[in-house]
Amino acid sequence: MTGLVTIVGLGPGEPRYLTPAASEALASATDLVGYGPYVDRVPERPGQHRHASDNRVELDRARFALDLAMNGAHVAVVSGGDPGVFAMAAAVFEAVENGDPAWRSLDIHVEPGITAMLAAAARVGAPLGGDFCAMSLSDNLKPWEVVEARLRAALAADFVVALYNPISSARPWQLGAAFKIVAETRGPDTPIILARAVMRPDERIGILPLSQVEAAMADMSTMVIIGASTTKLIERPDGKAPYVYTPRFYGVRP
Amino acid sequence: MTGLVTIVGLGPGEPRYLTPAASEALASATDLVGYGPYVDRVPERPGQHRHASDNRVELDRARFALDLAMNGAHVAVVSGGDPGVFAMAAAVFEAVENGDPAWRSLDIHVEPGITAMLAAAARVGAPLGGDFCAMSLSDNLKPWEVVEARLRAALAADFVVALYNPISSARPWQLGAAFKIVAETRGPDTPIILARAVMRPDERIGILPLSQVEAAMADMSTMVIIGASTTKLIERPDGKAPYVYTPRFYGVRP
Repeated sequence: MTGLVTIVGLGPGEPRYLTPAASEALASATDLVGYGPYVDRVPERPGQHRHASDNRVELDRARFALDLAMNGAHVAVVSGGDPGVFAMAAAVFEAVENGDPAWRSLDIHVEPGITAMLAAAARVGAPLGGDFCAMSLSDNLKPWEVVEARLRAALAADFVVALYNPISSARPWQLGAAFKIVAETRGPDTPIILARAVMRPDERIGILPLSQVEAAMADMSTMVIIGASTTKLIERPDGKAPYVYTPRFYGVRP
Repeated sequence: MTGLVTIVGLGPGEPRYLTPAASEALASATDLVGYGPYVDRVPERPGQHRHASDNRVELDRARFALDLAMNGAHVAVVSGGDPGVFAMAAAVFEAVENGDPAWRSLDIHVEPGITAMLAAAARVGAPLGGDFCAMSLSDNLKPWEVVEARLRAALAADFVVALYNPISSARPWQLGAAFKIVAETRGPDTPIILARAVMRPDERIGILPLSQVEAAMADMSTMVIIGASTTKLIERPDGKAPYVYTPRFYGVRP
């Protein structure tokens, strides 16, 4: 009997942001597979097997899930945010492409979730209100030259830029280098959003002008959003945090 | 008594993809404001006022919602997908910035949702598994020169490109022009995803090589995703649709 694999997006963390479809997929799984802290977010359920692993072993985890499914399991591969955005879905399909040909006959579903940039944007206004690019700043999986070329292209075309994986202890300098590149094309008052652990108990959100932002203000749980030239703050009374938004219009308003 | 405004993302359409947080915001609102078909998606509730409007009047709708809230209403502005991605959130903040200064004291929340590109991607695999750009192909709100320059920049840097608002009866030629530009930099086998009415009863999804795609295959309910040079099909047995994914790796795999 062949099982199935569902790659489930847990969203930013709080159950209020988990879709009912994702909840159902978690509830009906015989096996949960994923990075430990994500597996920990799912309530325990009698008879359901939990397979938590380290963060750096996506492909091994994907192959393990596919093997379980070949043996009849209904596997939920748990993923933060949306599985398709810098998360587990691409790793599972990479394993399928390069692995046991029998895996291609498996049904693999993806349950979408609220990815970090949408959660971060929602907290401050509508900074993604215009055209935007989403990119991983990690050079573990692509050369830094590619990261830099993409960032420069996105900035030159005046996209808003959402940076995933901005910094880690193993990648300490890349975000600082990125901010220097941003400063070559964007003004010092460009709003930069640093949104850490969004919609979790330890959430911390900063809105800073480019001239005051430092890489040390971010960590590996931080989403960085770089405003376009049109991104604006709306100041508010009584010490309230400003709203940040990028207008839908560009150039002369019709 | 001052009310509040919550801009609520309904996701792709099916209630299974509406977050519990969004459901709560809809349930607790005294007034619903939005484009007719979106308001129609929300179950009727005794005592709740429903204000449906036409599609082309985002700013009027935003101002109306803000006025209601100033008079004490708890307004839910309903939006398809995610409100912050080519939807109602930017219109509301634009109204705030340019309108009655008293509106700035209002609490305006955004409830994120599953935006169309995430829903479409989930249906076919993981085409957004690498870096990607999201842009509106509409030249109602920005000059076509800006649309074209952004598309060219995104293609040159080998981003996957998700196109919102690809075509409408008032904008019949832009998508064809975009496909011609894509063909200048991407090979004829580049996977193009046309995902119409995703996760709704009339869903229709096509995966076509660039050489076979035509603008007439899309309509205003279609999400278009253009693969990067690395985006691949995984062929499957027994006539099953292929999976499409973009690897996390770029260049030589470490």
